[in-house]
Amino acid sequence: MRQQPTSLFTDHYELTMLQASLRSGAAHRRSVFEAFSRRLPEGRRYGVVAGTGRVLEALERFRFSTEELDFLSDNAVVDDPTLEFLRDFRFSGSIHGYAEGELYFPHSPLLTVESTFAEACILETLILSILNHDSAIASAASRMVAAAHGRPCVEMGSRRTQEESAVAAARAAVIAGFSSTSNLEAGFRYGLPTVGTAAHSFTLLHDSERAAFEAQVASLGRDTTLLVDTYDVEEGVRTAVEVAGPELGAVRLDSGDLVDQARWVRVLLDDLGNHNTRIMVTSDLDEYAIAALQSAPVDAYGVGTSLVTGSGAPTASMVYKLVSRQDDSGEFVDVAKAAKNKASVGGRKQAVRRINERGRATAELVGVGFRPEADSNDRQLLVPLVLDGEVQPGFTGAEGVRRAAERHRASIQELPGVARKLQKGEPVIQTELITR
Amino acid sequence: MRQQPTSLFTDHYELTMLQASLRSGAAHRRSVFEAFSRRLPEGRRYGVVAGTGRVLEALERFRFSTEELDFLSDNAVVDDPTLEFLRDFRFSGSIHGYAEGELYFPHSPLLTVESTFAEACILETLILSILNHDSAIASAASRMVAAAHGRPCVEMGSRRTQEESAVAAARAAVIAGFSSTSNLEAGFRYGLPTVGTAAHSFTLLHDSERAAFEAQVASLGRDTTLLVDTYDVEEGVRTAVEVAGPELGAVRLDSGDLVDQARWVRVLLDDLGNHNTRIMVTSDLDEYAIAALQSAPVDAYGVGTSLVTGSGAPTASMVYKLVSRQDDSGEFVDVAKAAKNKASVGGRKQAVRRINERGRATAELVGVGFRPEADSNDRQLLVPLVLDGEVQPGFTGAEGVRRAAERHRASIQELPGVARKLQKGEPVIQTELITR
Repeated sequence: MRQQPTSLFTDHYELTMLQASLRSGAAHRRSVFEAFSRRLPEGRRYGVVAGTGRVLEALERFRFSTEELDFLSDNAVVDDPTLEFLRDFRFSGSIHGYAEGELYFPHSPLLTVESTFAEACILETLILSILNHDSAIASAASRMVAAAHGRPCVEMGSRRTQEESAVAAARAAVIAGFSSTSNLEAGFRYGLPTVGTAAHSFTLLHDSERAAFEAQVASLGRDTTLLVDTYDVEEGVRTAVEVAGPELGAVRLDSGDLVDQARWVRVLLDDLGNHNTRIMVTSDLDEYAIAALQSAPVDAYGVGTSLVTGSGAPTASMVYKLVSRQDDSGEFVDVAKAAKNKASVGGRKQAVRRINERGRATAELVGVGFRPEADSNDRQLLVPLVLDGEVQPGFTGAEGVRRAAERHRASIQELPGVARKLQKGEPVIQTELITR
Repeated sequence: MRQQPTSLFTDHYELTMLQASLRSGAAHRRSVFEAFSRRLPEGRRYGVVAGTGRVLEALERFRFSTEELDFLSDNAVVDDPTLEFLRDFRFSGSIHGYAEGELYFPHSPLLTVESTFAEACILETLILSILNHDSAIASAASRMVAAAHGRPCVEMGSRRTQEESAVAAARAAVIAGFSSTSNLEAGFRYGLPTVGTAAHSFTLLHDSERAAFEAQVASLGRDTTLLVDTYDVEEGVRTAVEVAGPELGAVRLDSGDLVDQARWVRVLLDDLGNHNTRIMVTSDLDEYAIAALQSAPVDAYGVGTSLVTGSGAPTASMVYKLVSRQDDSGEFVDVAKAAKNKASVGGRKQAVRRINERGRATAELVGVGFRPEADSNDRQLLVPLVLDGEVQPGFTGAEGVRRAAERHRASIQELPGVARKLQKGEPVIQTELITR
């Protein structure tokens, strides 16, 4: 039993708003909430939607058992009628959203929750936590994959982020095109391929670098990856080749000037006859370092810290806003706050990506209160994720990750080439908010 | 049942190194691993150790059940002898470390793990994930608390970080001096006080701002906090006072020029006779914004994004290194890698904070292989956390958080006043690595 309830990943105010609205009666008004972002992280050309599958997995575990209810009662968080409401809670509304792996732009309506206010209100924090984290990681990962131009990127950042974030980050990275992860729990939960090399401690544990390499090759085979920079890199490479022979899988370089080192290590490996031995580099890589290493004979990038911290943008800035709700007569009313610098646009949104005849994305069309007209090339972006409380198949677990990675590959190919630029700039396509 | 195993929060290579060292026999060498950081985040004056209690909680759940073993076997991560080793795994070594809440500086030996290589090696990722995340958050939180000079800071960042990170962040923030959190799960697990106000959606749900305030006050009492900036702030404040009367608890401002607004809202509240109604401000606050608001009549700060992302430093840079291990004769040998720009210092460290006669910290003394001489004012920094596999009492759960917060308060008071400066600078005390 590895699954815990998700119902307390919730801000205190959601349950007190629930209580107050149950009392006023407004809790039962049908409502539409939307998750979106007003902007991309500074200078990014596009964002990547990730976490959708995890939202659905978490929704299925959003239950209040006796333990949670006792906590809420003992601490007087909410009153008895509210506890009664939560006791049998099971989300019964519908959720549409961008498919996981899809790209997003400012004001893209990423996730639309339709239900009573009561049901939608208490999901706010959980939905935003997942989308904001996972999308930040996937957005950074996608740039790294683009910079690597087909060379594999391996996710190795678990140690630099919270232990559960590490699992989510590995999942988001693979959705955005990473080939594999070092995180075993991510392999366990989502079927991601896991890989590993060796640490300096393994070399230091043995009486010599040679003894360590011999131990590793004896146990893991000649196709293993040997870490060659614990002492002297040239000696490390020579010893590795002596121990493993021409079938040595790879060497890993983890320090120093990697561009220069990769070049002469490649020459040395070739001189020693190890033409098929690959070179993997690690050590605080980000998309810019990967781009700089493209001219070097590198076969794989191991990326850690900068991936799991979103390469300067550790969270997306998604918000979750009430945009429409019933009035006493049952009519839907568009609503929006007017607060300075945080104004939003009321009304339920529909979205289409405009695709030209050459298959290139040219605009994000967002209809306010209606579905924008779509040409034959255009793509409707909102897909049903939950219908009347039923999570739709194909979005969760290993299948969800696989499909999200496919979606991401296809959506990236639609973008104009400027999307691959690492320099800061404007979103690569503009969002057109259309009102009738 | 809310507890899941932690044994797969582990990088693939730890288990393959385990396999290779079991085969070479070196796995059984007694070893000393240390967690430390070579540097503070750029410009910070001190770091805050957090996560220690969570490491101990996670250690007690570091078990391989059939589910985990089947995964490792089905995916050929490790061989059968390694699976056998893991089947009965229970950490039997000892761990000493800085008490949670303590301050740290470059090369402070934060956590020392003594056991066989096999046992210590497979804890690397879990220990670093927890310490790197939690310490980054606590280090940022401590600066915010210092900037707030006694005004309460409330942690409200759950939506901007992964859902489990949110719980860890709330815990770390309270250790560093935050008064409370909005995160209910953090309240549930660690007994942290939880608080909440209301969202704009609650106002928009009702037919008018007045109807929303009436609903909130009817349900939550006059002492509640009303959010007054959904439409027009002045009208919002007037309506709030009309609805709740002089006993209105607080108003929350979440947009616009908060310094200016707080000033005239205070005047308005006083004019209306609401001298005891407090003003809470939120909206992308960080330590600099808090400092700028100190001149304004603000009663509490709600801090979100910048807290949970470490205010520019979302991860600490702690590493976990083998510093000493037995050789074949059973003698301990100090070890360290020589790799460029990542060299480390071999040998088990002991640490003392030098405190002068006025009670001020003046240096971090780190003895390599011996315990530095301590004067009567000085403090020994390493405390026993696990002895022969037994987690020592007082560090986990709610008690652990309470003690860590006390430790933090006491340690901060020892620092020279320059520690409170927000500008970038050098560590406020220097680390002296002492070899004999």
